[in-house]
Amino acid sequence: MLKNDVKEIFNLINNSDKICIAGHKAPDGDCIGSVMALYNFLKPLNKNITVLMDGNIPYNYKAFIDEKIISNSYNNEEYDLLIVLDTSDRKRLGKFENVLNNSKKTVVIDHHKTNEGFGNINIIDTEMSSTGELVYDILKAADADISLEVAALIYLAILTDTGKFSYRNTTSNTHRKAAELIDIGVNVSEIDNIVYNSKPSNIVRAFMECVSGVELYYDNKLGITAITKNILNKHNADMADIDGVVEYIREIKEVEVSCVLKENDEGTKVSLRSKNNIDVAAVSVKYKGGGHAKAAGFDINENIESTKKIIIEEFKKYFA
Amino acid sequence: MLKNDVKEIFNLINNSDKICIAGHKAPDGDCIGSVMALYNFLKPLNKNITVLMDGNIPYNYKAFIDEKIISNSYNNEEYDLLIVLDTSDRKRLGKFENVLNNSKKTVVIDHHKTNEGFGNINIIDTEMSSTGELVYDILKAADADISLEVAALIYLAILTDTGKFSYRNTTSNTHRKAAELIDIGVNVSEIDNIVYNSKPSNIVRAFMECVSGVELYYDNKLGITAITKNILNKHNADMADIDGVVEYIREIKEVEVSCVLKENDEGTKVSLRSKNNIDVAAVSVKYKGGGHAKAAGFDINENIESTKKIIIEEFKKYFA
Repeated sequence: MLKNDVKEIFNLINNSDKICIAGHKAPDGDCIGSVMALYNFLKPLNKNITVLMDGNIPYNYKAFIDEKIISNSYNNEEYDLLIVLDTSDRKRLGKFENVLNNSKKTVVIDHHKTNEGFGNINIIDTEMSSTGELVYDILKAADADISLEVAALIYLAILTDTGKFSYRNTTSNTHRKAAELIDIGVNVSEIDNIVYNSKPSNIVRAFMECVSGVELYYDNKLGITAITKNILNKHNADMADIDGVVEYIREIKEVEVSCVLKENDEGTKVSLRSKNNIDVAAVSVKYKGGGHAKAAGFDINENIESTKKIIIEEFKKYFA
Repeated sequence: MLKNDVKEIFNLINNSDKICIAGHKAPDGDCIGSVMALYNFLKPLNKNITVLMDGNIPYNYKAFIDEKIISNSYNNEEYDLLIVLDTSDRKRLGKFENVLNNSKKTVVIDHHKTNEGFGNINIIDTEMSSTGELVYDILKAADADISLEVAALIYLAILTDTGKFSYRNTTSNTHRKAAELIDIGVNVSEIDNIVYNSKPSNIVRAFMECVSGVELYYDNKLGITAITKNILNKHNADMADIDGVVEYIREIKEVEVSCVLKENDEGTKVSLRSKNNIDVAAVSVKYKGGGHAKAAGFDINENIESTKKIIIEEFKKYFA
């Protein structure tokens, strides 16, 4: 990370009145944690701040957000400064993509390998576990005071994007930063309870129905299941709330790649996870998606059954 | 921790030929990690070392142990030195309890609050996340060289006893030690894959059947389910392998206390987890069990149905 870039970002912030902070579509813990950490950090400066994230906030992250501050629509308003967090390309802004054209300056802060840098200033560090970890480094590089509220949001980002400090992206520095955040006062078990131990029982039932439907292919190396509208309706659940199915299927011993097909109005959203050596980002990029080697995804205009066939065919070269 | 105690432990080790390292009955990740870390640390000293742990090694910990070194029986052999790890009282040694009477000196290393210190030297530190974390501090206090193998076993102990760094016992120092272990070379995602992502599919099915059977009482504040011999037989699974059911039930939003009843030949083993303020160790102690405020358990000579009634009655005072 370049000290000069950090300096320039803080200059831009100081010289801007209307600031927009944006995250990616279907926001996850890292996106929400990073966006809200920056929002709360900037709040005392009395700027006019807009927050944009396209998609529902999952129930377990609602406690970290005052949803009133998030704009649902966007009327081509102009901003002095746009800061885009955790978003690997412009398409990932979803329905808010246009905001890029209506901002005088854009800063991109991200940790995704596939991010080519679509801002005027780009701080992209793929060694970081999470965008939240990178935001923390930026604040520290600027000798900024980090409040407990901001620390908790950065911790949320790190916690969720490292799968509780267990994915390969977890470094010794990630742990050292977690230690510093705890020293600021972050309550780890309280955050863990909100994120992971507050599942409404209808969500638990929907989750189990999705997991039960897993089909295993290629000597159990590929595990696929679907989250259908049918299952969601039956349990009165929202798609954004059924989290962790793809990770759970990856926990089966023989499974090398797990896949969850999420039915939506445009077709199917595909989530992929890899356990060892297979690069699922490479598969996703082929279908105009993105992500990391071990966690990636894409959208496709096909129904569940057709998508399943495509995925099975796609992994033939690895497993057959 | 007293430097003098550490010095004396290392003196005892140096002056002993026959050393026994013992952990508690139904060994878990902290027990196995601590015992094996100490075993591997002592191995180069060419002592005669015996390892005792009463109960099956869960499938996901087998990779960390050469099972040949674990004694299944005990013929009242005498030891110069016995080191008991992660074991809150003598009863928790299970069928190996007698080893205490046949050892010239006993060192107890533990982090359980209920441990009253039944050794000649007792290093009991309830501020530690895990016995593994304490073993690490002891080795560091002795300026010992820590090999990658020993580091990985200490990491295993910390990882599992903190629920992936999420229980209240996780301190900033716990994270700093994890960072040091990673700097020694510990591969976190590899260990995570072995411990959490290697579930045989029959275990996954048995797990889901147990979770599906959950019954909720007192406005969903108490969640109970059972792991019966019937379920185990049906899925060809071993009790030691069905891990995490009690934690999973705790993840339901309204659940304050989760309880799993494990059917065995002597009756029922009760596992309790608390989410917020209820001290389940207090309940367990009443039935001659032990543990921590948020994770405790006991054995009872009753069948599943009677035990369930007892548990429901027991929590009446908290929830009714």
